[in-house]
Amino acid sequence: MKTDPISLKNITINDTFWTPFMERIRLSVIPYQWEALNDRIEGAAPSYCMRNFKIAAQLTHPELDYGVDNTLGHGGCMWQDSDTAKWIEAAAYSLIRHPDPELEKTVESAIEIICNAQQPDGYLNTFYIIKGLENRFTNLQDNHELYCFGHFLEAALAWYEATGKRTLLDAMIRYTDCVDRLFGPEKNKLQGYPGHEVAEMALAWLYRVTKDEKHLRLAQYFIDQRGQPPLYFEDEAKRSGRGMAWADSYFGLQYYQAGKPVREQFVPEGHAVRATYLYSGMADIARITGEKSLLDACNSIWDNIANRQLYITGAIGQSAYGEAFTFDYDLPNDTAYAETCAAIGLAFFAKRMASLVPKGQYGDVLERALYNGIISGMSLDGKAFFYVNPLEVHPESCLKAQPYRHVKIERQKWFGCACCPPNLARILASLGSYIHTSGEKAVFTHLFISSEATINVDGRDIRLVITGKYPWESNISITFSMNEPAGFTYGFRIPGWCDNFSVKLNGNTVSFITKDGFALIDREWHNGDSLEIDFAMPVQFVSAHPRVRENSGKVAVTRGPIVYCLEQADNGDGLYRIYCGQPNDVQFRYEEDLLEGVTTISFTGKKEKDRNEDALYRNSQETVYEDKPLRWIPYYAWANRTPGEMTVWVKK
Amino acid sequence: MKTDPISLKNITINDTFWTPFMERIRLSVIPYQWEALNDRIEGAAPSYCMRNFKIAAQLTHPELDYGVDNTLGHGGCMWQDSDTAKWIEAAAYSLIRHPDPELEKTVESAIEIICNAQQPDGYLNTFYIIKGLENRFTNLQDNHELYCFGHFLEAALAWYEATGKRTLLDAMIRYTDCVDRLFGPEKNKLQGYPGHEVAEMALAWLYRVTKDEKHLRLAQYFIDQRGQPPLYFEDEAKRSGRGMAWADSYFGLQYYQAGKPVREQFVPEGHAVRATYLYSGMADIARITGEKSLLDACNSIWDNIANRQLYITGAIGQSAYGEAFTFDYDLPNDTAYAETCAAIGLAFFAKRMASLVPKGQYGDVLERALYNGIISGMSLDGKAFFYVNPLEVHPESCLKAQPYRHVKIERQKWFGCACCPPNLARILASLGSYIHTSGEKAVFTHLFISSEATINVDGRDIRLVITGKYPWESNISITFSMNEPAGFTYGFRIPGWCDNFSVKLNGNTVSFITKDGFALIDREWHNGDSLEIDFAMPVQFVSAHPRVRENSGKVAVTRGPIVYCLEQADNGDGLYRIYCGQPNDVQFRYEEDLLEGVTTISFTGKKEKDRNEDALYRNSQETVYEDKPLRWIPYYAWANRTPGEMTVWVKK
Repeated sequence: MKTDPISLKNITINDTFWTPFMERIRLSVIPYQWEALNDRIEGAAPSYCMRNFKIAAQLTHPELDYGVDNTLGHGGCMWQDSDTAKWIEAAAYSLIRHPDPELEKTVESAIEIICNAQQPDGYLNTFYIIKGLENRFTNLQDNHELYCFGHFLEAALAWYEATGKRTLLDAMIRYTDCVDRLFGPEKNKLQGYPGHEVAEMALAWLYRVTKDEKHLRLAQYFIDQRGQPPLYFEDEAKRSGRGMAWADSYFGLQYYQAGKPVREQFVPEGHAVRATYLYSGMADIARITGEKSLLDACNSIWDNIANRQLYITGAIGQSAYGEAFTFDYDLPNDTAYAETCAAIGLAFFAKRMASLVPKGQYGDVLERALYNGIISGMSLDGKAFFYVNPLEVHPESCLKAQPYRHVKIERQKWFGCACCPPNLARILASLGSYIHTSGEKAVFTHLFISSEATINVDGRDIRLVITGKYPWESNISITFSMNEPAGFTYGFRIPGWCDNFSVKLNGNTVSFITKDGFALIDREWHNGDSLEIDFAMPVQFVSAHPRVRENSGKVAVTRGPIVYCLEQADNGDGLYRIYCGQPNDVQFRYEEDLLEGVTTISFTGKKEKDRNEDALYRNSQETVYEDKPLRWIPYYAWANRTPGEMTVWVKK
Repeated sequence: MKTDPISLKNITINDTFWTPFMERIRLSVIPYQWEALNDRIEGAAPSYCMRNFKIAAQLTHPELDYGVDNTLGHGGCMWQDSDTAKWIEAAAYSLIRHPDPELEKTVESAIEIICNAQQPDGYLNTFYIIKGLENRFTNLQDNHELYCFGHFLEAALAWYEATGKRTLLDAMIRYTDCVDRLFGPEKNKLQGYPGHEVAEMALAWLYRVTKDEKHLRLAQYFIDQRGQPPLYFEDEAKRSGRGMAWADSYFGLQYYQAGKPVREQFVPEGHAVRATYLYSGMADIARITGEKSLLDACNSIWDNIANRQLYITGAIGQSAYGEAFTFDYDLPNDTAYAETCAAIGLAFFAKRMASLVPKGQYGDVLERALYNGIISGMSLDGKAFFYVNPLEVHPESCLKAQPYRHVKIERQKWFGCACCPPNLARILASLGSYIHTSGEKAVFTHLFISSEATINVDGRDIRLVITGKYPWESNISITFSMNEPAGFTYGFRIPGWCDNFSVKLNGNTVSFITKDGFALIDREWHNGDSLEIDFAMPVQFVSAHPRVRENSGKVAVTRGPIVYCLEQADNGDGLYRIYCGQPNDVQFRYEEDLLEGVTTISFTGKKEKDRNEDALYRNSQETVYEDKPLRWIPYYAWANRTPGEMTVWVKK
């Protein structure tokens, strides 16, 4: 059953847990990034983002004067434009939630500059406008040209959704037409596709807005042509005399998911952000066309990620090398790459899968990623960021051993390649669109975020209010308001972590059926109906599948959707010497003043005693333990105090 | 108390364990390598080794004709000459043990060609002779020129020791004089030193033979000048406009042990083979000069290696990146580099430390390396080799995950950079010199290898015969023969692994004192005296220091000096799910037909059951175990059957 997400305009989040994160995005990340885009951050390397557009605009319109020397070269990475795009997208979502005329004016001013850089034929990429248009679309594999195109398309669509203003959207439709003239199956066109995906899902979104079949066809072309023989990237490299990137790697062209047709790709491979963006686009197209073979690929890939290559935090992409997926059950905790953007990409994919078929597993993964491996990417003041989100950190290793070189023990202020912070901004600013979906005579709730939504069910507006202190507290109220009674199925996800729950309607038992991880209540709903749901939320000790080598003999501590970790700040060093044992004093407690308010877990475990002796090896199986009071904090909040060791998985 | 190793000419090994290894070197490795040096191995890339010398000789003597086109360029790596040198050295040792006129003639023919390549001023390096002498000694840091010099000096000294023939030695003394004219503190000389050490210990050996102070001074200069400001390698790189190698690494110039003066180096750093070769040279010089500050550095480095950075197999050099040491207690099993050559380098260092002061710890480490991490580098047929000697192997990781990319699951036939096989050849062919040392009125036995030695004690020859089936059996006989009674101290190492031993002299108790890991018997020895020693050799379960993160909660199985491992061939896959438990059925058994004859260990452990279910995570601390009969084989013999998983350390 296909369903639709709720427009951001129709939902307001007011949630103990999430509102502070969204406020950090609004009050800290978005303003900070605008300064970064304009190279006004003291002590930080310039991003060149807006400067590139100004230079490109002056080249196009010599009469303009943005106060920038238009003989300067392009600055920053070749994908620098995408940072600007992601910022506009995040700002758009933020404005829906919180009108801000000044921010709106700022974005408008940026859009004016951007549009002035557009070429007569619609082309719009500062790297090639500044460096020479004759080389445009000659290195699709690595130069992120269609990636920037896709991100700007998404920015334009978000801005249009937020403000109704079409300037940027029209510009991007012109750019889309330009791309459409150049790419396609016809002999006089390029048979290429993005080296870094995102345009696919952007074009699917554009099609939903324009209903222009041309836009759908272009999205389909990029997906269908991908990995078809003869392999475009091989030919492109030959033409330009370049060596093939990743030729000597495990994945080859599958780094780009471009080594074989997408319908023959049944497990996730290669660069995890690229991969999840592609899969999201595939799911979008499968949703529109209903094509089974594309859906089969999506399902198979999803199953593999969810059941074979997913960290308990919702992070994906195990390998720093290639920022990539590896293989089944390979989930190293300490060398994990687990890029923030990859977990965000997985959330995009999950959202799309959930709207294809309402199954609880999609919301389970989405929730796992959102409450853990995505927000771990940001400090609690919204001012520092992780690219890499390991599940175990041993600081000396990170400083001195190569396999850990990518692992930072403190969040960084900003990055030269600043993909993760604006990606965090856009997903958190658009969180409202992940909560419910609605379809024919049906509403599904995937996430339990306190919010007020207006949902159209068969032409009638239903108002749905969620209240509660999830994930710290287990009870959730859902109230329904409407002008007249309405018959429809209401389904709420039964979280995968939940072994036991109760639900009451207006204080009484209510009959429901469970299907695919949802509790479904099919009835005539009346104004004021209220569901009281209680998901039993004890502290849980979670084991990984026995084939996960790195977690063999270990256990993770969770409560509700929150994955916990031990930090040196609370527990001293030598976390790898700690054993859970079978504690009988497990407690949890909300601590308002700790880490912006978190529920901590405590119990007495065991710790192998250190020895003050020199011998590296000794003839003894004996281990000397001491009782060890343990204090666990939510994983997402790690590294917000004194840097030190951290671990999610501990010995049983 | 300083002691001297016994000359190879005065000892014959006839040992159940070692003789087969030495025969593999003699019958397989040395002949095979000669074919490799001459590019006659079908299917293997040419080594160019002898061809380089032939070309270089023809350039020097245009009237010569070796049937090689002398306009061809230099082939192979810039250090290719060292392979030829190591082969000559191994052949020399082998000829002492086993005269072979044909092999001797072959070596002579090689020496003739090599000497014909020598330049009028003594210089002898095919890379620069062929590529242009004007560039010689312009890239000491990376071009291995003084490394090849050092190896050839060792080859010449070994050949002289074996045959008494001086041709190569004289040529190398001329080369030494050439180097001596170019390097030194004088203003008109280069203030440089080897980028890859070995010349230091070679020059010390040369000095022991020639007693020429100039040779000692050159060795000292290379050691003393190393790492002195201004840093030679930095200046050299600047002069030639090169970038600094390893500038962006953890170690910088300490990769070469060249970032600070050697007397300020107290922990091992950088490339482990380079490092141990330097430390060996430092120990040689400290022995000759008795200088305390140099000895202090050796002692401190030794302590750190032995007690902080030594694998239980005697392997060192944890990091594939830089083939290097890392930091205290960092001993990853599965990503270990643990190069065969580094363990050999450690044996060189241990041998020298043992002759400086007779302490049991040196023989302990030597024995650990020899019986485990060195010979694991060679297949049991002597035809395939490991560079890298991991302590845990998970084949799929090695094939698909970057941190394991250096780990091979099968020994390779030969290598493009073939440093390890000839290094194995020369240490195994010279094993006799590691067994005893003798000093003033004292003989010390460091290794219990069945052998007959003639040892000069205060001008009188003592014949010392060791018999036994060590390491498979625990009892050892040592008999003394001599023309007339002699008073001296005889000391035998009490192995560090041994908790309990008995010793009898001629069937009766004998009084001894224990000191620094030796049992010392000070008496007047008579012809026919016989010691019966029994080192209790039960199966042991060994724990690593609690700070070794990777071995926390794990145990290794050993018996005597032999470290054991589990292989998939005997125990199925999923070795990481195996637990030792507290077995009460531990047995060991010599199996003559297995792996060329090994003692295996067996007992019933536990294994976590696999699960045929999809869920990657489940709410359960419960582990379902099954009894699991385990069969352990000696670590050195792993990977001689079907490739698969292997592990040394298992959960307790």
